Amino acid sequence: MKNILNANQNKADEIKQHLKEKKVLMVNIIGSPGAGKTTLLENTIESLKETYSIAVIEGDVATDRDARRLQKYDIPIVLINTDGACHLESISIQNALAEFDLDKTDIVFVENVGNLVCPAEFDIGEFAKIAVISVTEGDDKPEKYPLLFREAKAMILNKVDLIEYTDFNKTEFDESLRILNGGLSKFEMSCRKNEGLEGWLDWLKNTHAETAK
Amino acid sequence: MKNILNANQNKADEIKQHLKEKKVLMVNIIGSPGAGKTTLLENTIESLKETYSIAVIEGDVATDRDARRLQKYDIPIVLINTDGACHLESISIQNALAEFDLDKTDIVFVENVGNLVCPAEFDIGEFAKIAVISVTEGDDKPEKYPLLFREAKAMILNKVDLIEYTDFNKTEFDESLRILNGGLSKFEMSCRKNEGLEGWLDWLKNTHAETAK
Repeated sequence: MKNILNANQNKADEIKQHLKEKKVLMVNIIGSPGAGKTTLLENTIESLKETYSIAVIEGDVATDRDARRLQKYDIPIVLINTDGACHLESISIQNALAEFDLDKTDIVFVENVGNLVCPAEFDIGEFAKIAVISVTEGDDKPEKYPLLFREAKAMILNKVDLIEYTDFNKTEFDESLRILNGGLSKFEMSCRKNEGLEGWLDWLKNTHAETAK
Repeated sequence: MKNILNANQNKADEIKQHLKEKKVLMVNIIGSPGAGKTTLLENTIESLKETYSIAVIEGDVATDRDARRLQKYDIPIVLINTDGACHLESISIQNALAEFDLDKTDIVFVENVGNLVCPAEFDIGEFAKIAVISVTEGDDKPEKYPLLFREAKAMILNKVDLIEYTDFNKTEFDESLRILNGGLSKFEMSCRKNEGLEGWLDWLKNTHAETAK
């Protein structure tokens, strides 16, 4: 297991260096099945596609459903079907990146396999891990699945339009995040209603500007 | 990986045999973080505890939050903290079962780590895997994460009280389950409201009666 992690990390470091030279921002979107990762991508691409050249790597254990949902944007998409495996590794990412013209790419979004546990353990050369969680999953998730929330640079709390129908306690949720990761950038939104994405879009723009310096 | 799976399966077979001799029904509850597994257990134990001797094995990557939620029932609970690992394995289950007096136990509920992918790959000696999914996760989950839905004997569709606030398409969901696993027993409920559990409780009673024959 240690050898696997070391080999993965070495490859991830190569990717990081390569993306830096090419001034490409790559973010690794991680969350449970149904947290809203693909809908987040749809809205984000819709908002940014006129200004930025975007490419997507879609990770899935089976099917190309998510990749197909993004085909309408006419952007480069590589689908990685893990055939049951629970996370993406840097070797597959390196192969996928080779399919893009990185000289003409600003941002690469990686949608990881729907899983709050395993993907957080694997560096795939991303600049930032983005945790996506929905209010319907409950306010105890950061405490119960701490690694992702520690590792992430930004966290998206999705489906806030449903909060009144749940027992989600925003104060406890924020407090557990503060303890785990005080520097985390936090954004609340409803991807399904395409509401509240401004802060997240600004974060991407600023982060891309830093990367491209 | 193959060796790990083989060793796990051998141990699982031993457990299965032992539980059969003791006439104990063990079910393995699997679903994403926040699908409602612990709330399902709370309601189920509340309904059955006068009639059956129940024990619980709680799997979690970190914290004892779920185990603490069940302490009010004064039943035997063993917490398995996987320390980051994404599923339970049969060796830990065997150790946990040794803590119970199986001659005085009717049903063992195992709450697996919140994860729709990895736990489905590991037989832990259970009689049945139970898939728990909530409508807020979306109707495409069986197709996207097929293994669990193929392996499960029963499926609980939770949070049906929220269906009107989502895009969940019941017809497509049922159709994908029918294709994956025509023999699956299906139950719809709202665990948070403790509504609609009758069918599930009957299934447990009948399945236990079969086991105890």
